[in-house]
Amino acid sequence: MTDYTLYYWSVPFRGQFVRAVLAFAGRSWTEAGDAEITRRMEGPVGDMPVPFMGPPVLVDHATGAAVAQTPAIVLYLGETLDLLPADPAARALTLKVVADANDVIDELTLDGGRQMWTAKRWAEFQPRLRKWMSFWEETGRRHGLKPAAGWLLGGEAPGVADVVTATLWTTVADRFPAIGEILEDEAPMTAALARRVAGTPALAALAERAEADYGEAWCGGRIEASLRRVAG
Amino acid sequence: MTDYTLYYWSVPFRGQFVRAVLAFAGRSWTEAGDAEITRRMEGPVGDMPVPFMGPPVLVDHATGAAVAQTPAIVLYLGETLDLLPADPAARALTLKVVADANDVIDELTLDGGRQMWTAKRWAEFQPRLRKWMSFWEETGRRHGLKPAAGWLLGGEAPGVADVVTATLWTTVADRFPAIGEILEDEAPMTAALARRVAGTPALAALAERAEADYGEAWCGGRIEASLRRVAG
Repeated sequence: MTDYTLYYWSVPFRGQFVRAVLAFAGRSWTEAGDAEITRRMEGPVGDMPVPFMGPPVLVDHATGAAVAQTPAIVLYLGETLDLLPADPAARALTLKVVADANDVIDELTLDGGRQMWTAKRWAEFQPRLRKWMSFWEETGRRHGLKPAAGWLLGGEAPGVADVVTATLWTTVADRFPAIGEILEDEAPMTAALARRVAGTPALAALAERAEADYGEAWCGGRIEASLRRVAG
Repeated sequence: MTDYTLYYWSVPFRGQFVRAVLAFAGRSWTEAGDAEITRRMEGPVGDMPVPFMGPPVLVDHATGAAVAQTPAIVLYLGETLDLLPADPAARALTLKVVADANDVIDELTLDGGRQMWTAKRWAEFQPRLRKWMSFWEETGRRHGLKPAAGWLLGGEAPGVADVVTATLWTTVADRFPAIGEILEDEAPMTAALARRVAGTPALAALAERAEADYGEAWCGGRIEASLRRVAG
């Protein structure tokens, strides 16, 4: 019996933020699997663990609680597993980082592949991608992050904001080297922080498991192929 | 001296969720104004109150804390003004409702007007719009909401989830009568809840102020005009 059931597609993408928080906290979970997710999504709302338009959905086996929407799931795990800072502003900034990370991956996939990446679109996106990266660098700077030490929101130990940051940037940098190079250039402290946090045993094991389970996949589909052509 | 500065465009849309929580809690705020928002957004990240890609941003004058991203702002206000339930699952569901509301308004504006509404697109969107509405109805049903009594997540008094629900559905129903009619049909308990909460003195006064300040505007621009053609 695991601690949770996670409904998320068999790719990293948005679900990897939730998996990373679970792994960081040393919790176990069962993946519901793509067929079950589809069945629930397309079935009657009354049969859903919680009404949801798309995954992730997390079910806590200990309490029966079911939560959808990534920032809400992160809040739930953060509060019940005592992973959030005590200060309300730092707690809110943690959720802000999660929402920003969600926005970045939506933009990197052109909102779920509405359009495909072309060299021209990718070139036009560069200033905005760098602006997103600069947000992490500036956030770290304001909280005492240094090139080889510190955490995104300060404090003595890595928190949820660091876990989500590491998951976002190492997951894309490992799969799309051009993005990793831009990050090193635009936000070197963030790149180093991401590597430092992703190198902790729990997150390193999770990355290995993702590679074993999903191969090089990130979001999947044609949009991933088009991103690989411009940033691979 | 007001309690907060809110950076949000001079329309309701996403910012109205934050305004509604502030009004519900009896707090005062100054609107930064469109010119100042643009100046901050386009200026150096080091000069931003908090790094942000778009509004809303809220600055708390008492603490100096600055937060961006709607769910994070709602968490900050909910925690510091004691507006959230005590139970972690109910707190997370509150954020889930905020994230759903954000998704609904993004879909109603075709993600910021990437395309314009046509009669055909609007007709094709109907099942999905009804599905969204059914999420509110089902959530209420699971927490004891009745046609003329109760709150979205249960409890003895309206909370942030009710305030955001009321703001979402009454703001669109008042401006786009066709959406109000669909809501009455698909989610009658939600429609009644929204009217009940929106009728409380603080939120009724806020709606009057929105009408005085913004007229019939919701999100503004060509996308609003196209939505009015199909749902006005």
